[in-house]
Amino acid sequence: MHNAILLISCVDQKGITAGVSNFIYQYNGNIVAADQHIDDQTNTFFMRIEWALDGFTVPRTEITRAFLPLAQRFQMQWSLHVTDETPRVGVFVSKYTHCLYDLLFRYAEGQFKCTIPLIISNHPYARPIAEHFKIPYHEFCKFADNKAGVEAQEMALLKQSQVDLVVLARYKQIFSNDFVSQFPSKMINIHHSFLPAFVGSNPYQQAYRRGVKIIGATSHYVTEELDAGPIIEQDTVRVSHRDSLADLKRKGQDLEKGVLSRAVRWHLEHKILVYNNKTVLFD
Amino acid sequence: MHNAILLISCVDQKGITAGVSNFIYQYNGNIVAADQHIDDQTNTFFMRIEWALDGFTVPRTEITRAFLPLAQRFQMQWSLHVTDETPRVGVFVSKYTHCLYDLLFRYAEGQFKCTIPLIISNHPYARPIAEHFKIPYHEFCKFADNKAGVEAQEMALLKQSQVDLVVLARYKQIFSNDFVSQFPSKMINIHHSFLPAFVGSNPYQQAYRRGVKIIGATSHYVTEELDAGPIIEQDTVRVSHRDSLADLKRKGQDLEKGVLSRAVRWHLEHKILVYNNKTVLFD
Amino acid sequence: MHNAILLISCVDQKGITAGVSNFIYQYNGNIVAADQHIDDQTNTFFMRIEWALDGFTVPRTEITRAFLPLAQRFQMQWSLHVTDETPRVGVFVSKYTHCLYDLLFRYAEGQFKCTIPLIISNHPYARPIAEHFKIPYHEFCKFADNKAGVEAQEMALLKQSQVDLVVLARYKQIFSNDFVSQFPSKMINIHHSFLPAFVGSNPYQQAYRRGVKIIGATSHYVTEELDAGPIIEQDTVRVSHRDSLADLKRKGQDLEKGVLSRAVRWHLEHKILVYNNKTVLFD
Amino acid sequence: MHNAILLISCVDQKGITAGVSNFIYQYNGNIVAADQHIDDQTNTFFMRIEWALDGFTVPRTEITRAFLPLAQRFQMQWSLHVTDETPRVGVFVSKYTHCLYDLLFRYAEGQFKCTIPLIISNHPYARPIAEHFKIPYHEFCKFADNKAGVEAQEMALLKQSQVDLVVLARYKQIFSNDFVSQFPSKMINIHHSFLPAFVGSNPYQQAYRRGVKIIGATSHYVTEELDAGPIIEQDTVRVSHRDSLADLKRKGQDLEKGVLSRAVRWHLEHKILVYNNKTVLFD
Repeated sequence: MHNAILLISCVDQKGITAGVSNFIYQYNGNIVAADQHIDDQTNTFFMRIEWALDGFTVPRTEITRAFLPLAQRFQMQWSLHVTDETPRVGVFVSKYTHCLYDLLFRYAEGQFKCTIPLIISNHPYARPIAEHFKIPYHEFCKFADNKAGVEAQEMALLKQSQVDLVVLARYKQIFSNDFVSQFPSKMINIHHSFLPAFVGSNPYQQAYRRGVKIIGATSHYVTEELDAGPIIEQDTVRVSHRDSLADLKRKGQDLEKGVLSRAVRWHLEHKILVYNNKTVLFD
Repeated sequence: MHNAILLISCVDQKGITAGVSNFIYQYNGNIVAADQHIDDQTNTFFMRIEWALDGFTVPRTEITRAFLPLAQRFQMQWSLHVTDETPRVGVFVSKYTHCLYDLLFRYAEGQFKCTIPLIISNHPYARPIAEHFKIPYHEFCKFADNKAGVEAQEMALLKQSQVDLVVLARYKQIFSNDFVSQFPSKMINIHHSFLPAFVGSNPYQQAYRRGVKIIGATSHYVTEELDAGPIIEQDTVRVSHRDSLADLKRKGQDLEKGVLSRAVRWHLEHKILVYNNKTVLFD
Repeated sequence: MHNAILLISCVDQKGITAGVSNFIYQYNGNIVAADQHIDDQTNTFFMRIEWALDGFTVPRTEITRAFLPLAQRFQMQWSLHVTDETPRVGVFVSKYTHCLYDLLFRYAEGQFKCTIPLIISNHPYARPIAEHFKIPYHEFCKFADNKAGVEAQEMALLKQSQVDLVVLARYKQIFSNDFVSQFPSKMINIHHSFLPAFVGSNPYQQAYRRGVKIIGATSHYVTEELDAGPIIEQDTVRVSHRDSLADLKRKGQDLEKGVLSRAVRWHLEHKILVYNNKTVLFD
Repeated sequence: MHNAILLISCVDQKGITAGVSNFIYQYNGNIVAADQHIDDQTNTFFMRIEWALDGFTVPRTEITRAFLPLAQRFQMQWSLHVTDETPRVGVFVSKYTHCLYDLLFRYAEGQFKCTIPLIISNHPYARPIAEHFKIPYHEFCKFADNKAGVEAQEMALLKQSQVDLVVLARYKQIFSNDFVSQFPSKMINIHHSFLPAFVGSNPYQQAYRRGVKIIGATSHYVTEELDAGPIIEQDTVRVSHRDSLADLKRKGQDLEKGVLSRAVRWHLEHKILVYNNKTVLFD
């Protein structure tokens, strides 16, 4: 049997937890996980609650309608997810394939509850990997002067594949604002630095030049401003004067794989709420 | 104004969250933090819920009686805490004073919501520190043949000082089972290894000899079996062949300070539930 | 052009560094890396020194003979390596393929200076991976009653493939002492715990039961005693009461990949010296 | 008996290691530690070599003169240190005393080979701590309009106390370039962020606002440009949406203590070489 998950945010006020848990209890639901958070600065309430649908007396298709009055009473922003839905994920990649490889291995292992119907790249390098994992691969040469046209083709592919989430697994091209705006909190990027340090290109080179003793990687939702979206996950590793630029890249790539895969998994498990350009992460 | 905190564990069943949140809501309480956990292996439900007493219509002294019916209905193990209570902490220390120093500095900074009415030692070394922080210091020479008598004196002091929590800040003496049994889940020890590796004495020496590449520290509740109680917190740090035994001690002592102080803080904030010789930690 | 690398250990005494660096300088060698360590406990000197062969006036094949007098003078244990040699690595794997995948991806990326001529398994699961990376795959059913015979076949394959290093990438079978003794400090295992904690089988289960707050992974050279050989590398990651046994496995597997791959790379780069069942690691 | 330490940097060329180790060997010195590094980008050689003076046939006062010809031959930048010298350290502090406390506790424990003859502050808060550790405390009110005059007094105190190293243990005032230029690579600051992220004031507030998932601390040598000097050490710790700004400060302060104390210790042990606004750290 499957579970239902509610993600909720609203102004904090008395009775929200009671209201939501009563809703589940009155229809004979059994809560399997619940987490909540109150942001003191903005007086905002956040909740993730998950219950078993086995024995729940509201039919799966009626849950939204049944919950609506409560949502309206507290003026919630909310979304309902059922674990029998399988989100569809489109992956973009450029030259570096370590993140793609890692994602696909985890996908094959069953770590991600999703379907990956396509991979899009501006390079041919990842094609053998896509073929090994039997995922359609689309290659587009992309330059300043054909970007708008290529993006239209890419968008058409994503729509046609009914993609719910876009993952940029080291994709070097910057999307237009129009493109980005189609995937609000639904496009995850991996940046190979500890943001906000070393925004933009060649962060390992920047880190090497600055002589930092620790490097990092950051996964975030993509917004219009480059490398400035809500941060989902970060990780760091020590480096020393002995580490060449190539060592920084190698060490950093291991971080990138972990950081991106955790962000994707949490998103697919509906564990992330976005507000104020930050994330609440019910891991 | 102050908050009330409920710590609850019971067999998982439908309606617990609804029951508890309704209890708070019906008396006009505002939840400021709530966390729950279900242990699948044992089907056990754990909850920590905290609400503001400002506006709560049950008088502070009546909360226990008001909550009792619900507790009985779900056969809860539970405890109620109010943030106007200030727990009293007795600290034991032997030769090494780094943990004591660290605890007292944090205490002076206001990191711990507690009173420390006394420090007990089997050595004189920590006396100047106790004096600097103006805390009574009691010294007992303790040997195999006077242990029972000394323990009786120590226990009398702890009772007299109404101590709720005992912290062993690198105390080298092992207490009798009788003594330990007076402080169930109320005596915190710091062990200078990554348990269960290197139980017993000289863990740094053991680690040095084994040639580990990482060392650790562990805070745990004391039980009758040595170094085998429920683990509250652990931390690790890298070492290399360049690190002498003295380096291991120095690096490890920094771990110990952090690990012990976090355990003490979480205990004082009522964030720890013990079950099955493990801890649920609502940090 | 290529480099020569000397790995040296001997009783510490005056003049070793001068002797070795003079040897290189007198034949016009340019040192590109040098590291040394003195173990105070045993008064042992360790050195790794690497120099460019470009311009070095001793022919590549004569270096050993040229160095011999110095080695004898200081009664060194030593080995000479030239970076034009490509070590040959045989990999063993059982059911879990994450470490194998990771090793082969790094191998394909050029992170390891080696050739992998064969993979041996007691299961069929890794065959598609071996085929994807175009490496011969040998499968042997292995049970208590055919172990000696299978080991003989495995050894024949390793000899025939001229394997210099054996890597156990989550291989569940325990080799006989005879087999192990053929690869002194040349067989690397990954154990999925923070050794010496949780030796033996099901370490994640052991860790879960003990309620540790951090789990680890350890790579070590295999010796006759199970999980007790010289530790090469370890890493740890935080876990909490929220982590199920499956979560521990998933988190741990990411550690295993990193820890094993670093051990293999350092071995291949001749950065490890073994003594006293410990390692000196010139990373 | 004591050791001599040479810190050397020069253009990389053949024969440096041979030259230096011969110098020590010819006068009957026994090397106890040696480490070197070659920066490929700039073709620079760095070395730290330490040898026992027991039996060394050059008198302590003649070592510099004896070494000079070799230094000139390789056009070295170099410095000689003998472990019987006790560097003198002046500490500056403002309101936050956690770093000062930590430094003085380590000082009292013998972790630092130095003398601390004075503490200077623009606030009275640290005076009791200074008194507890019996170190003279000088307080100066410092504002925009009296800064030059106060700096002159501070400099006079430092000169008079023959201070070799200045440590800014959370000192909020920015020194004039003139002042800074008196302590090239001899003034260590702790910045409470993971530089180069969050330069300037209120880095915890900046980190909180940006929603990072990890915070850090950085110790560096002070140069004329704010928070832009050579980085000595960094460390990081995880934070989450549950952490308030106060939690970030508390967690960060523990980082700061470790990061600053390691930087000071390494400096005092002559383990740091500065070049290109970066550090080589022979830890």
